[in-house]
Amino acid sequence: MQRVVTIGGGTGHFAVLEGLKNRAELTAIVTSFDSGGSSGKLREEFGTLPFGDLRRCLVALSDSEQLMRDLFEYRYSENGSLQNHVFGNIFMLTLVKVTGSYESAIEELGKILAIKGKVLPCTLEDKINLCAELDNGKIVKGEDKVGQYKLHYNLEIKRVFLEPQPDAYKKAVKEIQEADKIVIGPGSLYTSIIPNLLVRGIPEAIKQSQGKKIYVVNIMTEHGETDNFTASKYVSEISKYLGDGLHYVIVNTEIAPEDLKKLYEEEYKYQVEADIENLKSANYEVVIGDFLRHSNLLRHDKDKLAKAILDI
Amino acid sequence: MQRVVTIGGGTGHFAVLEGLKNRAELTAIVTSFDSGGSSGKLREEFGTLPFGDLRRCLVALSDSEQLMRDLFEYRYSENGSLQNHVFGNIFMLTLVKVTGSYESAIEELGKILAIKGKVLPCTLEDKINLCAELDNGKIVKGEDKVGQYKLHYNLEIKRVFLEPQPDAYKKAVKEIQEADKIVIGPGSLYTSIIPNLLVRGIPEAIKQSQGKKIYVVNIMTEHGETDNFTASKYVSEISKYLGDGLHYVIVNTEIAPEDLKKLYEEEYKYQVEADIENLKSANYEVVIGDFLRHSNLLRHDKDKLAKAILDI
Repeated sequence: MQRVVTIGGGTGHFAVLEGLKNRAELTAIVTSFDSGGSSGKLREEFGTLPFGDLRRCLVALSDSEQLMRDLFEYRYSENGSLQNHVFGNIFMLTLVKVTGSYESAIEELGKILAIKGKVLPCTLEDKINLCAELDNGKIVKGEDKVGQYKLHYNLEIKRVFLEPQPDAYKKAVKEIQEADKIVIGPGSLYTSIIPNLLVRGIPEAIKQSQGKKIYVVNIMTEHGETDNFTASKYVSEISKYLGDGLHYVIVNTEIAPEDLKKLYEEEYKYQVEADIENLKSANYEVVIGDFLRHSNLLRHDKDKLAKAILDI
Repeated sequence: MQRVVTIGGGTGHFAVLEGLKNRAELTAIVTSFDSGGSSGKLREEFGTLPFGDLRRCLVALSDSEQLMRDLFEYRYSENGSLQNHVFGNIFMLTLVKVTGSYESAIEELGKILAIKGKVLPCTLEDKINLCAELDNGKIVKGEDKVGQYKLHYNLEIKRVFLEPQPDAYKKAVKEIQEADKIVIGPGSLYTSIIPNLLVRGIPEAIKQSQGKKIYVVNIMTEHGETDNFTASKYVSEISKYLGDGLHYVIVNTEIAPEDLKKLYEEEYKYQVEADIENLKSANYEVVIGDFLRHSNLLRHDKDKLAKAILDI
């Protein structure tokens, strides 16, 4: 089986992992800089590594019964002490407390959830903030704030950075170095994908690796973060942090059904324009095709995407 | 193997279960009326059955690795949203949310913890309060308050009762009816043991059962609840709620080491006086002996106690 490393976080990453599960020797490398929601709340209270993306990836790779997966994703809505907490995050926090380390906790959780593959945070450092510098020099701090910068500023992001600068988790570096394929994205550009590339040691390992480097462009823009972004804009942003290292760019060219697009437009989300003409490059090959899932959600189809990745 | 039903809750129950585990076909029947601590907090916020005693029994009967047991008993001490919560209680609450019923949640948890035997709440009704009427007619309401009545009143308990009056969990009734032996206690008299006997259907089932009925008298008095109680006082209180149904009463007659007793006395806890002369009865046989654990804790030795129960 091919050794595939995926780099990302969030919902997009989930589809890649579910598609490649059982078809490749998988390692998911994920961000751990959440500053909002349940993960952010636990981070604030306990100074812990935020577990949101780790948890989602563990569940995606889990071979345990549906009940256990439902349990992990259960979110408390009632008023009170558990409000907004996701059970899986509390589970991970308690495992860290009992085992005494992030590494052991993630390993034990992998066993409890019977995961197929590995899930590794890009760094084990737990007090790291994602920041963005806007065109006018203004600094936006915190993953939740960076993900909404366009709601507050009519400006572009000049660069994103981490503060303080973390070093990569050594096991993640090793997996990247030894991979046959490295799949970056899909996922939230500035808050899930690029943050991995800001960790000292991760982009270096990607460049050194003999593995084929593949970037999967998102299906939909995200309101507040990538409004109006075309496929080439996604790629050029990634290249800012990764240099000329990409070998393949996967772009969906299937147009989504009008009625569904209308629904998404109500939330200011639009299908990413496949501006292939702007993607010509000597460095990478563009893989176009229908990667759309036939459902009420405009997302990547896990099987179509997995096939494209494995066929490369 | 003998079919043994244990009735209780709390630390005393733990020793019985650990001792009989793997030596008998075990069913633990436990109270679910906590009103303090982590269980009480969840009960207050979520209107849920309090899980404290259920959780402890499940852990006692668990065959899973130590890590899982440590995880379940982990209590958050940090300030913040999880303060005082025991992880196992949150786990059980989330299972109830995801499965939709107490029965399924307890069953699934039994599987997750790989328990040997069964753990059943005496009732599935979840809005029940333990109350005590004192000698002067004063009513004390809530398990936590009943367990400390002597700290506030220089009075005896005339009777304890449940409000509203719950019906027994049918599976618990069936196990009692079919048991070879029914072991009541040791454990907190008014807050862990007698509450089971207040549930409509439980004392009736004990009386009907052909099984041998055994009451295990506590090793130590409990400050606020059973100060100055002798062995015969424990038995007479149990008999108030159970009638003449007991066949055997197990009383420890080994005197605890002086230095340990001194330590306990600092917390106003004393060894229960084995006033055997007051225990003569035509109805039951008194089993005396050394049931003391050799440790820094004045508790029943699980193996000595298990042997006595199985030998009857």
